[in-house]
Amino acid sequence: MTDGLNMSRRLRRTAYTQNVEAAGVTGYSIVNHMLLPKGFQKSVEEDYWHLREHVQIWDVSCQRQVEIAGPDAEKLVQLMTPRNISKADVGDCYYLPIIDENAGIINDPVLLKLGKERFWLSIADSDVLLYAKGLALGANMNVNVFEPDVCPLAIQGPKAENLISKIFGNQIKNIDFFKFGWIEFQGTQQLIARSGYSRQGGFEIYLQNSNLGSDLWETIWEAGIEFEISPGCPNLIERIEGGLLSYGNEFTRENNPLEIGLAKFCSLDGSIDFIGRAALEKIATSGVKKKIRGVTFDGDKCPTCSMPWPVMVGDEKIGQITSAIWSPRLKKNVGLSLIDRHYWLPKQSVEVHSQDNKIRLGEISSLPFI
Amino acid sequence: MTDGLNMSRRLRRTAYTQNVEAAGVTGYSIVNHMLLPKGFQKSVEEDYWHLREHVQIWDVSCQRQVEIAGPDAEKLVQLMTPRNISKADVGDCYYLPIIDENAGIINDPVLLKLGKERFWLSIADSDVLLYAKGLALGANMNVNVFEPDVCPLAIQGPKAENLISKIFGNQIKNIDFFKFGWIEFQGTQQLIARSGYSRQGGFEIYLQNSNLGSDLWETIWEAGIEFEISPGCPNLIERIEGGLLSYGNEFTRENNPLEIGLAKFCSLDGSIDFIGRAALEKIATSGVKKKIRGVTFDGDKCPTCSMPWPVMVGDEKIGQITSAIWSPRLKKNVGLSLIDRHYWLPKQSVEVHSQDNKIRLGEISSLPFI
Repeated sequence: MTDGLNMSRRLRRTAYTQNVEAAGVTGYSIVNHMLLPKGFQKSVEEDYWHLREHVQIWDVSCQRQVEIAGPDAEKLVQLMTPRNISKADVGDCYYLPIIDENAGIINDPVLLKLGKERFWLSIADSDVLLYAKGLALGANMNVNVFEPDVCPLAIQGPKAENLISKIFGNQIKNIDFFKFGWIEFQGTQQLIARSGYSRQGGFEIYLQNSNLGSDLWETIWEAGIEFEISPGCPNLIERIEGGLLSYGNEFTRENNPLEIGLAKFCSLDGSIDFIGRAALEKIATSGVKKKIRGVTFDGDKCPTCSMPWPVMVGDEKIGQITSAIWSPRLKKNVGLSLIDRHYWLPKQSVEVHSQDNKIRLGEISSLPFI
Repeated sequence: MTDGLNMSRRLRRTAYTQNVEAAGVTGYSIVNHMLLPKGFQKSVEEDYWHLREHVQIWDVSCQRQVEIAGPDAEKLVQLMTPRNISKADVGDCYYLPIIDENAGIINDPVLLKLGKERFWLSIADSDVLLYAKGLALGANMNVNVFEPDVCPLAIQGPKAENLISKIFGNQIKNIDFFKFGWIEFQGTQQLIARSGYSRQGGFEIYLQNSNLGSDLWETIWEAGIEFEISPGCPNLIERIEGGLLSYGNEFTRENNPLEIGLAKFCSLDGSIDFIGRAALEKIATSGVKKKIRGVTFDGDKCPTCSMPWPVMVGDEKIGQITSAIWSPRLKKNVGLSLIDRHYWLPKQSVEVHSQDNKIRLGEISSLPFI
């Protein structure tokens, strides 16, 4: 389902928007008050197969950075998350939940440790900047919190490493998963991480200096032609099959990290203190009431999921699908839902009430879908 | 300029979206992670004339409420704004800037005082909820900060009062501008304020309970037929002509309240304390370097302004237009821009570099345009 998007300055353009337009973008979403391209003149299915085989270039500038710098920087970051960051080294990327006093999730960014007293939070769709500013001001911390001029560009797909090493040298092959290093571009040092919002491998270049955006895009594009590079974006089929969750879709402030599979990023041994600790410990003790699961379901290709779809067992609503799409590989519809504890085992039969008013037979699946 | 908007649950539907769809919505913007309708099968110009003559119904649910309740509620609200709220009565609406430690604007909401210890902030496009939560948690305040289920619906235009009194009774005529009262709807008490994002007069109903949304829309619609009611939305021509600013468009965190005409809402006499006070006092002492102004400019109808357009005097950039449109009443293009102090007097000649690569002759105007 695509409707019209009326443009204004408030829906911020990125360092690559002119390249994205030239590449034939057909639709956007809005993340962090910024344009996120969502399609390029081919179907989501064509895009899916291409991503699994070749390499794509994605404008993910909407992954804004919240820079936290100064003597209290580590203290402030730790206050915001149940993940223990005390062992992080410079060059590490940490995926982590940020939670409020009720253990409700405020965001699920990637933390980049740039220095002993300098961090970036590469954020999903909520103003973490304002939360961090509020905490720092309220608690009188000695930190500077701001949004630097950084526009991430993702290179995703199995040929990403060959493409990136061709342009920037073989040393990028030494960067491990969820680590970052540095490349030189037009006389500047730019941060590159082995990461990205797909299961196909690749890199994200955190370009500092928007003015270099177009040149960076074109440099990668031209070198990528021999690898059949294509403009792309996070692919909904690949994301759902891979069990990659989306803040605001699969989970919101109504949910806690234990429900969405992030127990491994929650230190509940008392070794660290953070906002929401008491609430999270209480939830851990009593056990969560629902957990994230996959749901496969029958019928023709399902419509776009723009509102939660009830997942039913008999007359009981046991969950709601928040993202869904037809999988051309699995030959059925796949969706993501938090599922009540009594029904969350794989193979449980369910009915899905999709927003085209159809009732579809389905079953619970583990994640990722295989 | 309209591109595609790819829907997902994260771009939240409102209590009225199904009514808006049935009324033939053609495009949206995204504000506070929620759909804001931006057009209905007629031109912005037709909509403009209609709004000035009749009455319209607008889904402005994206004006989310941040509820701040508890013993420290007033203290927290005052901490966030330079406007003195100590004299506010229950039933008052206060337009006010929220600023950070640098006096940069975080939002420009309307404050509604619901009780001695209970406030709503009806917000523009940024997560004030997270800022307020951060402050409250950091400073250990005794307040509850949350987003209640409230979907504002605006009734705007010269016939709004007659329509609303026909449905809800003549007592609504006693509600003054920027005050609120209560109406009964289906056995519930609902808040109604004389306010709205136009200069044509009208009301905003802060509907509590999304489930009543469709019925409320239809009730107003049916009663409105005799007043030639139309579905609508904030009208860009009317807004710019009226000098109504938009957070994220005309001003951002880079700007302070004194630049955008809000000096009257800044208590700098030392009677109150708030975040950013020292920074704001310093700016007030040295004088602002730029101020918001209107710009009229020639040529054919200008395109949509989706990026800042340089405003030039000779080789010097003296401002940037952030919203602009053709005014069918004034028969020229009108825009809004912060303008450097040396050039901000009305009648100053300028050149506008619009994003269709045209250079247009123009001049500075006071606001509102007349």
